[in-house]
Amino acid sequence: MIQKIDHLGIAVRSLDQSIPYYEKALGLHCEHIEEVASQKVRTAFFAAGEVHIELLEATSDDSPIAKFIESKGEGIHHIAFAVDNIQAQLGQAKDNGARAIHEVPIDGAGGKLVAFLHPKSTFGVLTEFCMPKPTEA
Amino acid sequence: MIQKIDHLGIAVRSLDQSIPYYEKALGLHCEHIEEVASQKVRTAFFAAGEVHIELLEATSDDSPIAKFIESKGEGIHHIAFAVDNIQAQLGQAKDNGARAIHEVPIDGAGGKLVAFLHPKSTFGVLTEFCMPKPTEA
Repeated sequence: MIQKIDHLGIAVRSLDQSIPYYEKALGLHCEHIEEVASQKVRTAFFAAGEVHIELLEATSDDSPIAKFIESKGEGIHHIAFAVDNIQAQLGQAKDNGARAIHEVPIDGAGGKLVAFLHPKSTFGVLTEFCMPKPTEA
Repeated sequence: MIQKIDHLGIAVRSLDQSIPYYEKALGLHCEHIEEVASQKVRTAFFAAGEVHIELLEATSDDSPIAKFIESKGEGIHHIAFAVDNIQAQLGQAKDNGARAIHEVPIDGAGGKLVAFLHPKSTFGVLTEFCMPKPTEA
């Protein structure tokens, strides 16, 4: 079951140029900056109520974020829903016509399990499910 | 000051085709459907935690949503922040380089005052501020 929107991923050309907009024009607080080498991105996190805004800057020309900006320009890249059971949510989505990018959840940033649905199967919205990784027994 | 994300606007070609995805694959509840004649859209509202998801279908070829889909395809169209003082927030944004689409807030759906920032000035994200319309004295 979906609990809330966990975060919105926004593709930007440059964190250095866009962070001041989020801080000054919107008045949001940049909580931390983190490089996710596996995704070839550098990210900056801001809180807006219960949702995080995650700015995404490509660290390489073959980063998914570089490809997104090349085809669509800067803008909102994905929406991530916090769910209570990621396998069940993925199964429900697939049973109802969505196409999973990952057949099983993978390790994401911040110690979470994540899985994505392909935007061609979700009316144009790259959609992520995420939940905290269960602690090992 | 920004209080939270109020809603996300998502451009779709057809409410009839996309509502079942949000209901069945995601398990969200469609709260109501409303036509906003001034914007030439028909909208469907879903709650996800404290944020609403607002699907937007064009009711005319010259609707802003029809133009958006023509150039970018279906997908996330705008992000709306709930603010406590829309004039102050608009002033703060403009003082820090954002360009307002509306110099003063206008009447939006649901009895709200709304104002938009141009995506060319906000790193690609069409950004809305909204607040309840003050009751007349």
